[in-house]
Amino acid sequence: MKYKIVFYTVGRVMLFEAALLMIPLAVSLVFGESCAVAFIISVLIALVPGLALTLLCRGAQKDIFIREGLAIVALSWVCISAAGALPFVISGEIPSYIDAFFETVSGFTTTGASILTDVESMSRGLLFWRSLTHWLGGMGVLVFVMAIMEKVPDRSINILRAEMPGHSVDKLTPRSKSTAKILYYIYLALTALEIVFLLLGGMPLYDSIVHALGTAGTGGFGIKADSIASYSHYLQWVITVFMLLFGVSFNLYYLLLLKKWRAALDSNELKCYLGIFLAAFIIIAVNIYPLYGSVADAIRLSAFQVSSLVTTTGYATADFNLWPQLSKAVLFLLMFAGGCMGSTAGGLKMSRIVVLAQSVRNELRHALRPRAVSSVRLNGRRLDPQEVKSVHSYFAIYITVIIAVFLLISFEPFGFETNLSAAVSCVNNIGPGFDLVGPAASYADYSGFSKLVLSLAMLLGRLEIFPMLLLFSPKLWSKR
Amino acid sequence: MKYKIVFYTVGRVMLFEAALLMIPLAVSLVFGESCAVAFIISVLIALVPGLALTLLCRGAQKDIFIREGLAIVALSWVCISAAGALPFVISGEIPSYIDAFFETVSGFTTTGASILTDVESMSRGLLFWRSLTHWLGGMGVLVFVMAIMEKVPDRSINILRAEMPGHSVDKLTPRSKSTAKILYYIYLALTALEIVFLLLGGMPLYDSIVHALGTAGTGGFGIKADSIASYSHYLQWVITVFMLLFGVSFNLYYLLLLKKWRAALDSNELKCYLGIFLAAFIIIAVNIYPLYGSVADAIRLSAFQVSSLVTTTGYATADFNLWPQLSKAVLFLLMFAGGCMGSTAGGLKMSRIVVLAQSVRNELRHALRPRAVSSVRLNGRRLDPQEVKSVHSYFAIYITVIIAVFLLISFEPFGFETNLSAAVSCVNNIGPGFDLVGPAASYADYSGFSKLVLSLAMLLGRLEIFPMLLLFSPKLWSKR
Repeated sequence: MKYKIVFYTVGRVMLFEAALLMIPLAVSLVFGESCAVAFIISVLIALVPGLALTLLCRGAQKDIFIREGLAIVALSWVCISAAGALPFVISGEIPSYIDAFFETVSGFTTTGASILTDVESMSRGLLFWRSLTHWLGGMGVLVFVMAIMEKVPDRSINILRAEMPGHSVDKLTPRSKSTAKILYYIYLALTALEIVFLLLGGMPLYDSIVHALGTAGTGGFGIKADSIASYSHYLQWVITVFMLLFGVSFNLYYLLLLKKWRAALDSNELKCYLGIFLAAFIIIAVNIYPLYGSVADAIRLSAFQVSSLVTTTGYATADFNLWPQLSKAVLFLLMFAGGCMGSTAGGLKMSRIVVLAQSVRNELRHALRPRAVSSVRLNGRRLDPQEVKSVHSYFAIYITVIIAVFLLISFEPFGFETNLSAAVSCVNNIGPGFDLVGPAASYADYSGFSKLVLSLAMLLGRLEIFPMLLLFSPKLWSKR
Repeated sequence: MKYKIVFYTVGRVMLFEAALLMIPLAVSLVFGESCAVAFIISVLIALVPGLALTLLCRGAQKDIFIREGLAIVALSWVCISAAGALPFVISGEIPSYIDAFFETVSGFTTTGASILTDVESMSRGLLFWRSLTHWLGGMGVLVFVMAIMEKVPDRSINILRAEMPGHSVDKLTPRSKSTAKILYYIYLALTALEIVFLLLGGMPLYDSIVHALGTAGTGGFGIKADSIASYSHYLQWVITVFMLLFGVSFNLYYLLLLKKWRAALDSNELKCYLGIFLAAFIIIAVNIYPLYGSVADAIRLSAFQVSSLVTTTGYATADFNLWPQLSKAVLFLLMFAGGCMGSTAGGLKMSRIVVLAQSVRNELRHALRPRAVSSVRLNGRRLDPQEVKSVHSYFAIYITVIIAVFLLISFEPFGFETNLSAAVSCVNNIGPGFDLVGPAASYADYSGFSKLVLSLAMLLGRLEIFPMLLLFSPKLWSKR
């Protein structure tokens, strides 16, 4: 392990965060809020390790191999969350540091799980920062840093590979700094488009930006106690559509920009994504119809909640915790799905579901005809056995992580449904769960220990487990 | 598909069941119970399809390939359950046929899930039949038939392979009729030994036999409303130890008989089994200690419940549904584990857990050192990649089945915890779940549709999914 380049890069990321904190600082100044002071102090504090690390580790070798990439990604995400929590604590609006850390991890990992019991009492600057972390985390904080940093060494692509969701299966993840830049332009453009559509529906500018940031990152932090429920039906539909759009692979938009229509639409991952959305949407709409007595309401509420959970966003327009069991069961399963590989969504991801489903089909075929040869295809490409094996291993380790988190938070006195859905929700970066962590409730009542476990769960889920888990491996830190 | 040999064999199995029904008939005659009549009528009814199929399909080709083996196993299990339910209905003690079918499937699949709300009011003959189905199902009904049937064609080993749990991974499953016989002798001897130990503790003969049958099959049907709780501590410990013994691979006992000590004990599956038992036992004993205030009680109750769930037996000496969340979480996870491959236990099985764990470890290693080569070992043997892949595919399909069952029974108004634990418990052939299907409750309140779904779930779990699932595949039935 080359320590110097790791710490140097983490230092750069910290400096970068200090700069980013200027944005909510500006917002709080615009609204004349006292939390501006908290942002200034936070910037100054973040500068200390940032400057120290970059200066002390200057002139490091620029070679970044896979293990350095993994260490940089894992450490950076922990450090930006640790520093990003400062404004909440310093302003006194979230007095406990653990709570603030949980909230910030939840932001950067685009989870949207909150410990706030009264979100409407928070200052606008802090709420803006909360939502901005979603937006930054959505596309990968380090991808962002790389995309705009000058003099990026060639090997830094190993950082992108380690951070960008879906690096292991899909072939279209950023291969270079320029691709990363283009993906970020698309991201920016789509976010801007959503803001325009929200403004057209009469949503105030501040609300529009905050909700667009939350939708783009598939995060889910809102600014109202009832999430999106009190906005007009038009606005709810705009957010529904944009949640779905941000759950689609950005590579698809890239291909559309290049006018490669055929390649873009010949994606079995996209078909799986839309198929799962439609199936869940229809089942739930039919199931909740008797509850609301209106076809339009059932359609709107089902579409919103299904797209919110399938894309791991976590906004809500209804307290789905009170829905019939069948709808809850479908929503619970949607929590595992996640959007497409290469989108901002968390979860298992559609690509992996497509691969697992084909694998299972092949195995059944194989049971009848032991000599049958069958292949696994993803978006027109035939995967080699090693790639299929990686997906299976990921699935096994992903289930293991959910189990471990569930066990660790079971020290709490809360019920089975609360704890299991909290673990599933956090590992998959959704936000709300069921029962005591339902969309109308919060994670406030969990103990400090459980909040740290759930923070780790969110980081594990966001970074697709390996970088965070390897952080604890002595082998990563060995000199060899 | 060669239909004739399939139907011929199913017919033989039905005739066999008619003969087996004489045992509970004898029991009911001994106790002078009126349900004897129900058994006589059931025998006569079972003889009709039995004789018809064997006579009509006489002289069939004796070649049994994999697809015939799968069809025979799946059809046989459905047919013996359908016929085995008759005595309950005819006697009027379980008036609904669906209920009786559920109970019989639960018996043969060694699940132990019951729809009875007042088990103590049942006649002794019927309770004996219920427990006998556990014993027959435990080692595989067809293995039993093969073991004692004369003139078994060579190819019939394909039936054993399709039925015997663990055919896909472990190398020591019965390769021939003679091995099947030896395994059944061991099974018989261990059951007899348990009866002796129970008698020594003062348990009446009838109770001893019934509980030994239930323990041996890792089933869990009892004859008291509170399962095993009202028996003495000595008897509870005897059952604890025998549950654990029946969760060990029978191949291990076979190796011990052959005095191959080294091969028998050099088993990483056994280590995993004992390790999981110990870990769960300690966590729960500590966790429930404050509830009982006595170290001895905490140890006894934890050991019993843990071995009951890890071996998928399902007996209970405490209403673990009322235990603290941590204990419930551990028990919930134990439900997935299952005993060793080649035991009578259901569940995922320790072998698969060992393989999955090594796979995950290798994948993590691989993430740090892309060129590292690592292998997966099971009981001293190195598995080839195809075998590892099979385990991974099985895991994926197993999770899919649990999800599907959970969705299908979510039409019920019961809560998330009830439905999820019912699905997990039935697919893993445990018996009790949590909440409304906890150890102090029953499956009586589920609708007929859900009972059929759960019956299918138990069959899927018991036969390790493939035979049952392929029954629905048109390809299995094609002439080619």
